[in-house]
Amino acid sequence: MTQRVRVQNFNVSRDGIGAGENQTLERPFGEVEPGDLFGWAGATASWVNRTDPGGTRGVEDYITRDFARNIGAEIMGRNKFGPIRGPWPDLEWEGWWGEEPPFHTPVFVLTHHPRPDLTLGETTFHFLEATPHETLERAMEAAGGKDVRIGGGVTTLREFLDADLIDEMHVAVYPTELGTGLRLWDRPEVLTDRFHLEKVTPPSGITHCFFWRR
Amino acid sequence: MTQRVRVQNFNVSRDGIGAGENQTLERPFGEVEPGDLFGWAGATASWVNRTDPGGTRGVEDYITRDFARNIGAEIMGRNKFGPIRGPWPDLEWEGWWGEEPPFHTPVFVLTHHPRPDLTLGETTFHFLEATPHETLERAMEAAGGKDVRIGGGVTTLREFLDADLIDEMHVAVYPTELGTGLRLWDRPEVLTDRFHLEKVTPPSGITHCFFWRR
Repeated sequence: MTQRVRVQNFNVSRDGIGAGENQTLERPFGEVEPGDLFGWAGATASWVNRTDPGGTRGVEDYITRDFARNIGAEIMGRNKFGPIRGPWPDLEWEGWWGEEPPFHTPVFVLTHHPRPDLTLGETTFHFLEATPHETLERAMEAAGGKDVRIGGGVTTLREFLDADLIDEMHVAVYPTELGTGLRLWDRPEVLTDRFHLEKVTPPSGITHCFFWRR
Repeated sequence: MTQRVRVQNFNVSRDGIGAGENQTLERPFGEVEPGDLFGWAGATASWVNRTDPGGTRGVEDYITRDFARNIGAEIMGRNKFGPIRGPWPDLEWEGWWGEEPPFHTPVFVLTHHPRPDLTLGETTFHFLEATPHETLERAMEAAGGKDVRIGGGVTTLREFLDADLIDEMHVAVYPTELGTGLRLWDRPEVLTDRFHLEKVTPPSGITHCFFWRR
């Protein structure tokens, strides 16, 4: 099996906004309400952060339970790790993700300010200043033959798309326009020169966009 | 994790027909064209019988690649094993499935004419005359904590539904009426007293029905 580079469960508004401006500790998505963006995932039985029993078992449950399937490493931007900009004041900040982050693999965090590796539960964060190609090479090696997930945020995902390093991508489009924020695209169709695009809208009202290379 | 009883990738026409009359060796689905019923699955990259590269990576690929996830045993009716009715003339017939059947688990075949166990590749077929409850008990034990798939055909699936033994079910509805054959239901909504029902129609034109217990 060839290793693939996948994006899964990335969420944007109808006008392509994946996160608001002005990220803070209290608001990882800035001026955007995260529940609006991925409430569909939280409703499913297999949602990674679900602690209650129950949840839906429709098609969106297939999507959430696919999050970890055959993934051996994740790449994320620094702002998916935390809100701090510039040099780290100290090493106290250990990410948004708690003591058992939901990745369970090596995670490569892109930053202009590298710091020592950080292991929390089954996840080890590696911090590096590198190009998308260099980062992917390290992640592929760490993934041990499994696929690599590009976790976002918007800026990181755009960099990997611009470098044409993505093989498959799932983006959930929330049916509201947000107007301002970090924008992934104007509309999904801008990528159809390079990707097949399938759009499916289950009763949640979310339009799930599936891309795979032409 | 509780063991669940699941139906996956079961295919019927818009009027609920899952197989035609007059099954023969050459026509496992009788007078129904199997390509009509599960062409959608064959188009996906993860289809279990795919040998060519390529295939789609949209939502239906999530569905086909979920076929084996956490499944520890399958239960099927005799006519999913083969076309022979009544006593076995000999043991020469070894199923429709070739030397490496796509199940890779114990498979329990319901028949009024039990015969010795048959191992092909990673699959062992056990033949038994038993009620749905008794069969499920054996399959649950054999599944080693994993889920049990009810594989069909129509008659077997109806028996397990009538006995209220199904926890989750995915049925793909092909948008053509067939008129005659083995019928699962008049319409999917007949089961909504017991199940949540979500319907999703991707560009293939197939309506995927997902049921889970209320």
